[in-house]
This record gives sequence, C-alpha cells and structure tokens, in this order.
Amino acid sequence: MSESPSPKRGRPGYDQRAVLEGAVAAFNDFGYDATSMGVLAARLNLSKAAIYHHVSSKEELLQLALDEALDGLEGVLLEDGALQGRAIDRLSHVLRGAVFVLTDRLPYVTLLLRVRGNSLIERAALERRRNFDRAVTALVTAARDEGSLRDDIDPGVVTRLLFGMVNSLAEWYRPTGHEDALQLADDVLNVALNGLQSR
Amino acid sequence: MSESPSPKRGRPGYDQRAVLEGAVAAFNDFGYDATSMGVLAARLNLSKAAIYHHVSSKEELLQLALDEALDGLEGVLLEDGALQGRAIDRLSHVLRGAVFVLTDRLPYVTLLLRVRGNSLIERAALERRRNFDRAVTALVTAARDEGSLRDDIDPGVVTRLLFGMVNSLAEWYRPTGHEDALQLADDVLNVALNGLQSR
Repeated sequence: MSESPSPKRGRPGYDQRAVLEGAVAAFNDFGYDATSMGVLAARLNLSKAAIYHHVSSKEELLQLALDEALDGLEGVLLEDGALQGRAIDRLSHVLRGAVFVLTDRLPYVTLLLRVRGNSLIERAALERRRNFDRAVTALVTAARDEGSLRDDIDPGVVTRLLFGMVNSLAEWYRPTGHEDALQLADDVLNVALNGLQSR
Repeated sequence: MSESPSPKRGRPGYDQRAVLEGAVAAFNDFGYDATSMGVLAARLNLSKAAIYHHVSSKEELLQLALDEALDGLEGVLLEDGALQGRAIDRLSHVLRGAVFVLTDRLPYVTLLLRVRGNSLIERAALERRRNFDRAVTALVTAARDEGSLRDDIDPGVVTRLLFGMVNSLAEWYRPTGHEDALQLADDVLNVALNGLQSR
C-alpha cells in the first residue's frame, strides 16, 4: 500500500502520502500529542499552509494513519484464506497476513499499537482493534473445537500471546525485504503451532 | 516488592514508595515527558515541596522506577534455577520468573517497556534491557546446542518472540492474584515449548 501511486497535488514531491508518511514518523518519534503542526512543518521542511493544502488537521493525519494499519489488518480477515477451509488453516492465514501487514506498514502499525484512547479517533481505533481481536479469538475457539488446537489454554489468552509475538515485531523488526518477512511469518507460525522444543 | 514495608518519612501516608507509585502511574497515564512535578503534585494531592522531601527530581523518580523493573528481571538471572541444570530448564526458569516480575511489578515494567532512549537515564535502562536479552539469547543458544530446542529458528528471533509474548502482558494483564500469575506463566511456557497444536 505504501508504494501505491497517488495523484500529486500542491508542491511537487509532497503529495498527501508524503505528508502522511512524515507525520507518522514524527508521531512515532516524538509522540502524537507532542507533535504540533509547526513541529511537523519544520520536519518536512514545508510551511504549515502547504501541509493544510493536503490535510485539514492533525487529527485527519492520525485518522488516515490509523486507517492504514486497521484497513490492512481487517483486510486480512476478508481474504479467501481467512474465510474458507479448516479453522486452523484460516487462523494460520490470518497470523501470516498480520505479520505481512506489520512488516509492510510498520510505522502505521507501530502508531496504532501506541494508541491509548485519548480522543474520539483513538477510541474508535481501539474499538476496531478489539473487534479484530474478537474475530481472531473466534478462529482460535473454532480451531480448538475442531480438534486442531489444544484445549487447556483459554482462547482469549491464546490470541493475546499470539499477537504478543506478532506485535513485538513493531519493536524490533527492521525492513530488509519480502523474503525476510516470509521467513518471520514462518517462524511465528512455527513457534505458535509447534513450539520450540525439539522432537 | 511493591508490598514490602519501608520506613515512613515526612507527611504520614506519603513515604517515598507511595510517591514513586503515584509517579509511575502518572508517567504511564500521561507519558513521562508530559508529567511535570506540578502535575504529579496535583495528582498526589501534595505540595511540590512535600515531593521534594522524598526525591530530588523527576529524573530520580524515573531512575527508581526503572531500577525496580530492571532489578527484578536481572534478579531472575541470578536465581539458582537460572544458574544450575540443563539450559532448557534454566531458560524455562527465566521465562517463568520474567512473567512473575511483570505481573508483580506491572506499572514499573510497563514504564520500562515504553522507554525510547530520550535521556541518559533512559539509554542506560535500554542498555540493561539489551544485556538481559543477550543473556536470554545465550540460554536459548545453549538449549539449542544441548539438543533441547529446535535449531531452525535464529536464537535472537526466538528470544524476541518469547519476550513478545511475555511483555504483551503489560498491555492486557490485570492483577487478580498469584494463582493467576502462575497459570499465565504455565500458559506462556506451554505455548513457547510445546506449541498450540493438539497432539
């Protein structure tokens, strides 16, 4: 998504996408609350007026950024692999997909994971995260009920531990190419399903 | 540790421990940078002078809070169970111990996990976290070399995924008693070593 073309507007080289990318980087570095439009303008080497040519407010930038992360995660739930087949295969598809979204849209998901609910926009984002988690927990429960997953751990705890692994990527993953993301997705699935113990 | 008695000083009911607990809660709610001593005094219903009776500065509160988390984690590495026996048993001991530290000192570890290195104190804390991670990675490597752990996943990635699970507790665990922490430690170890797949 981050490479998708969008029509250039205003000052050459600074379309809305570029402003958004710069804003998300600043939000992650300084914190959303501490990043004023003035700070952002200085960082992008633009006037505030130039930024307002692309977005109406700092809140709109936050909304666009959180949508980028949440649309990606929710999109995974709508893929064929998440909708068809055995629950264990659908769950595996969703876990792999979440790793890809995280590695592909790293700054956006990083921002999402730091949201604490300080505004309407943030609370709406947290609600969408909770709905995503609920959908995954339903998949974990279905995989347990079909006999694919052990039944001695609460499905809600399982979901949180799984996404503990996936979301930790935001803390330590540094993009080095798609092969790397594939390997990571394999590693996460392998640890989650088969465990680390040698057999 | 948070229940350990400490000598009362100054205004009754507000010893250094109580000031520290209030400060950590405020740092976690508002962010460290956004929490001035004035904000803290208002939250604790104390004068700033009363706070300065217990600590010399906001930085000292941060230092004390991060020490609380790091001393706990480093302490686990020095326990008998982490020093003696097979590497897989030592690793398991450290993982369980880390879950106990996290559940027992939740606000302190939460603060530690949000540190980004904006000051000397924060950078020193990050360096101690890195040293802790290195010690765990060495245990993972030793457990692999003794044949206890699978050898197809990089030990550094294994450590990060393991602590992805453990550290995620800071986001969702709410204290409900020691039994609960024991169960969680079992769940984390079970997922990590044996995986979720039914056998």
